[in-house]
Amino acid sequence: MHPSRWGDPARAADLPASARGLVEAVFGIDEQPAVAAVVVPPSALGPTVVDALREAVGAEHVLLDDATRRLRTRGKSTPDLLRQRAGDLSDAPDAVVRPADHEQVAAVLALAVEHHLAVVPFGGGTSVTGGLAARREGYAGLVSLDLVRMKRLLAVDHTSMTATLEPGLRGPEAEALLSAEGLVLGHYPQSFEHATIGGFAATRSSGQSSAGYGRFDALVVGLRVATPRGELRLGSAPASAAGPDLRQLLLGSEGAFGVITEVTVRVRRLPAEKVYEGWGWPSFTDGAAAMRTLAQAGLLPTVLRLSDEHETAINLARPDAIGAEGASGCLMVVGHEGEPELVAARRTAVASVLTGLGGMPLGEEPGRAWAHGRFDAPYLRDSMLDVGVLVETLETATFWSRVPALYDAVRAALVDALASEGQGPCLVLCHISHVYETGCSLYFTVAAAGGSRSLERWQVAKTAASDAIAAAGATITHHHAVGTDHRPWLPAEIGDLGVGVLRAVKAELDPTGVLNPGVLVP
Amino acid sequence: MHPSRWGDPARAADLPASARGLVEAVFGIDEQPAVAAVVVPPSALGPTVVDALREAVGAEHVLLDDATRRLRTRGKSTPDLLRQRAGDLSDAPDAVVRPADHEQVAAVLALAVEHHLAVVPFGGGTSVTGGLAARREGYAGLVSLDLVRMKRLLAVDHTSMTATLEPGLRGPEAEALLSAEGLVLGHYPQSFEHATIGGFAATRSSGQSSAGYGRFDALVVGLRVATPRGELRLGSAPASAAGPDLRQLLLGSEGAFGVITEVTVRVRRLPAEKVYEGWGWPSFTDGAAAMRTLAQAGLLPTVLRLSDEHETAINLARPDAIGAEGASGCLMVVGHEGEPELVAARRTAVASVLTGLGGMPLGEEPGRAWAHGRFDAPYLRDSMLDVGVLVETLETATFWSRVPALYDAVRAALVDALASEGQGPCLVLCHISHVYETGCSLYFTVAAAGGSRSLERWQVAKTAASDAIAAAGATITHHHAVGTDHRPWLPAEIGDLGVGVLRAVKAELDPTGVLNPGVLVP
Repeated sequence: MHPSRWGDPARAADLPASARGLVEAVFGIDEQPAVAAVVVPPSALGPTVVDALREAVGAEHVLLDDATRRLRTRGKSTPDLLRQRAGDLSDAPDAVVRPADHEQVAAVLALAVEHHLAVVPFGGGTSVTGGLAARREGYAGLVSLDLVRMKRLLAVDHTSMTATLEPGLRGPEAEALLSAEGLVLGHYPQSFEHATIGGFAATRSSGQSSAGYGRFDALVVGLRVATPRGELRLGSAPASAAGPDLRQLLLGSEGAFGVITEVTVRVRRLPAEKVYEGWGWPSFTDGAAAMRTLAQAGLLPTVLRLSDEHETAINLARPDAIGAEGASGCLMVVGHEGEPELVAARRTAVASVLTGLGGMPLGEEPGRAWAHGRFDAPYLRDSMLDVGVLVETLETATFWSRVPALYDAVRAALVDALASEGQGPCLVLCHISHVYETGCSLYFTVAAAGGSRSLERWQVAKTAASDAIAAAGATITHHHAVGTDHRPWLPAEIGDLGVGVLRAVKAELDPTGVLNPGVLVP
Repeated sequence: MHPSRWGDPARAADLPASARGLVEAVFGIDEQPAVAAVVVPPSALGPTVVDALREAVGAEHVLLDDATRRLRTRGKSTPDLLRQRAGDLSDAPDAVVRPADHEQVAAVLALAVEHHLAVVPFGGGTSVTGGLAARREGYAGLVSLDLVRMKRLLAVDHTSMTATLEPGLRGPEAEALLSAEGLVLGHYPQSFEHATIGGFAATRSSGQSSAGYGRFDALVVGLRVATPRGELRLGSAPASAAGPDLRQLLLGSEGAFGVITEVTVRVRRLPAEKVYEGWGWPSFTDGAAAMRTLAQAGLLPTVLRLSDEHETAINLARPDAIGAEGASGCLMVVGHEGEPELVAARRTAVASVLTGLGGMPLGEEPGRAWAHGRFDAPYLRDSMLDVGVLVETLETATFWSRVPALYDAVRAALVDALASEGQGPCLVLCHISHVYETGCSLYFTVAAAGGSRSLERWQVAKTAASDAIAAAGATITHHHAVGTDHRPWLPAEIGDLGVGVLRAVKAELDPTGVLNPGVLVP
């Protein structure tokens, strides 16, 4: 992972020259972002603590060098990238510690309690909500607990169709191990290439194929968790009435309740066929109504997403298309995966519903184009940041009857907030990518002139959008977790008493508060 | 509800004379259970508390009479019925209090804290795990919080396909209100005719159509809960990544964390067609493998259940068939509900799989017979208890690969335990009625000579079966909740730390421990 950009450093690219001129003209860019010198603060850990950590995980797995610590500083939100670009490494960990297994994780947690170190569990480092920016005040130091060595496929049960994975496996690594067994997990968030199994569980992630495979929390049947108070093993059956489902209390716990060391997931057989196709709709409203019809008829495909008119017109995932004449209406991508005869039957049934509702089949080309670029948008964000254009995303979810009002409110909040900052035009794009019988997600992408004030402009816009989401009674995040960025809006969502429950659980599992302090729990 | 039998007193019936002789001969019954006199202990509440409760809910809704208190004593497990039959009313509440709405529930909880009263939320009273047998020692009194007045359909959202129901609605009452809107909830546990919406939520209930409609916890999108610390409102979206899913912490909380006062559920359109059919299998193993194939192929019907060889041979739901020649092999019931064309398509696809795996279609008669008697087994239990035969059930769930070992272990534990009690033959029957991609439930019915020692015999057998379930790593209950009866086995399932989490949550929401003391939390 690049320290101040998304993903593979080899894939960093400038905007094409043709696009760059257009982008600068559209957004009125007249200043180029400065490039600041990077200075990593010195490690605050004394030799006693370092020696103890070395004892716990092996000397070569306690890393104190600047480059490694810089790579474990914060996540990949646009503010995170902007701070890195500005040379702000104030959140750098004092050490990066790499345990090999559950027992070493437990040993590190014991040392953290003994020496009062803040511990930040680190998987892929792709948080976009400040989930890696733990509070360091009041602690003797801050340790990044890097799970990169925990990459085993611990068990496969072909009868029960479950697999037990270690948390450090990145998406493609997990799928490669499962693929060798003829199996697939089917969890493809945009961060898939970098994010990890442990991170998917800790953040209640949801992938682009959630309509077919389910959210990550629906895939998990078992968890092993190391906490300062000992071990939790949860998941004795697919479903149970033996009290509250504590799995669902650890899923989404964001490293604040414990460190997830094993995840047992439901798997499926590798799909023999994958077909993605495009459908055109006169409006976002029409397309959303069609999604709702499919969900409520029990006819969901594997992938179902719908871009609004703005996003359809400007496909930010394709820099070569910037400036080309945009499509009209709204583009829907429909994907089917599975056994050929089931794919064929489902495809026919879905197409029949969509045609009946006024959808226009656009063939497989738009589906292929989406599938080809499905993980690439964050690279374009870097290219835009390079020329001074602020690009960021946020997302929410609500029940179907509230979707139009939520869409209008968030869009208006973003446009108004960026306009009030008075620095050229902005784009607000939206798509629906996660669909349920009772509602759906809304995912917004914003692009605006930022320049040297990108960070401040975004914070104003993000606050306005979050306030609008809370006022609409929607969730502050459908699949990006709370982190530190969403924490101020959590009490509005679960109430002070809900926050009290989270605090009580944290106090039980992490009484001295060493786990990801300041993350999740207000 | 009959005070010492299941269900509608008008439906209480003796065994047919022909069956009675056979049953007595088979089980070697030679003593008839005694009928004891019933004495309800006097209410322990003083006038100050009674007046305060009357102030809170209205004088006519604080009931102190013996008959009402007897009707709110314990639930409907066989031990509960045997204790009632033996005249043991030591668990009778001191008062039955009937709040009209959330605010009155909150007012009663405030009084409970003020006067240190134990509060037992009461819905349908159909607990079979001692969920209504709260501890009274150390409390100034024990109040049954009867939710019978809270029966409103508060909201219907036809776009989002959700409905908000009050907790006191019994299954048929909720379905009648929804049916008038063209909607269905689709939750049909065996207790359907008597159990309530609040009870379904509090116990993580699962119904006979769970394959098609989902468990009750999958149906719930929102909850309102009154606690001694205030109100919880949960469920801002169909799904969320805003931290742990606290809905799943309150579902299954069994009245120990709060009183559920509103439940928002996902609903569906009333099915235009319902077809139930029978399939025959050479063995339980073959039938279970077919269920697994359907679940893992994404081809689950609405209802899917399979009786083992013992249950198929002796259909206890049909007293008129007792003594008739039993069927051989194993009977599977497959039910499809929905729009006619989808039912037809699904039925064809399922039949194709079942035929290919060696299933023998038995037509609609066995399906109709099952559907006709689907809620009746508890009435037969009473008739058997009348003649001194102990009948009880227990259930569990596990992953597919562990099903054969779990089945053998629980069956052996029950047979051995009852044999060691040395009082004639016993029957142990089993069926699978809840199926997932990764596993299934196992539901055992036991019939054995009991006579005056029925209660002791059952306790020995239940303990042996529960130990076997825990040793197999399965869940102590798939859909009957923890109550007091399963509490000793909960630590084995969620660990001491899991129990610590439950205690911490209870301490946060119910600091003085007035809510259902002794239930759920060890």
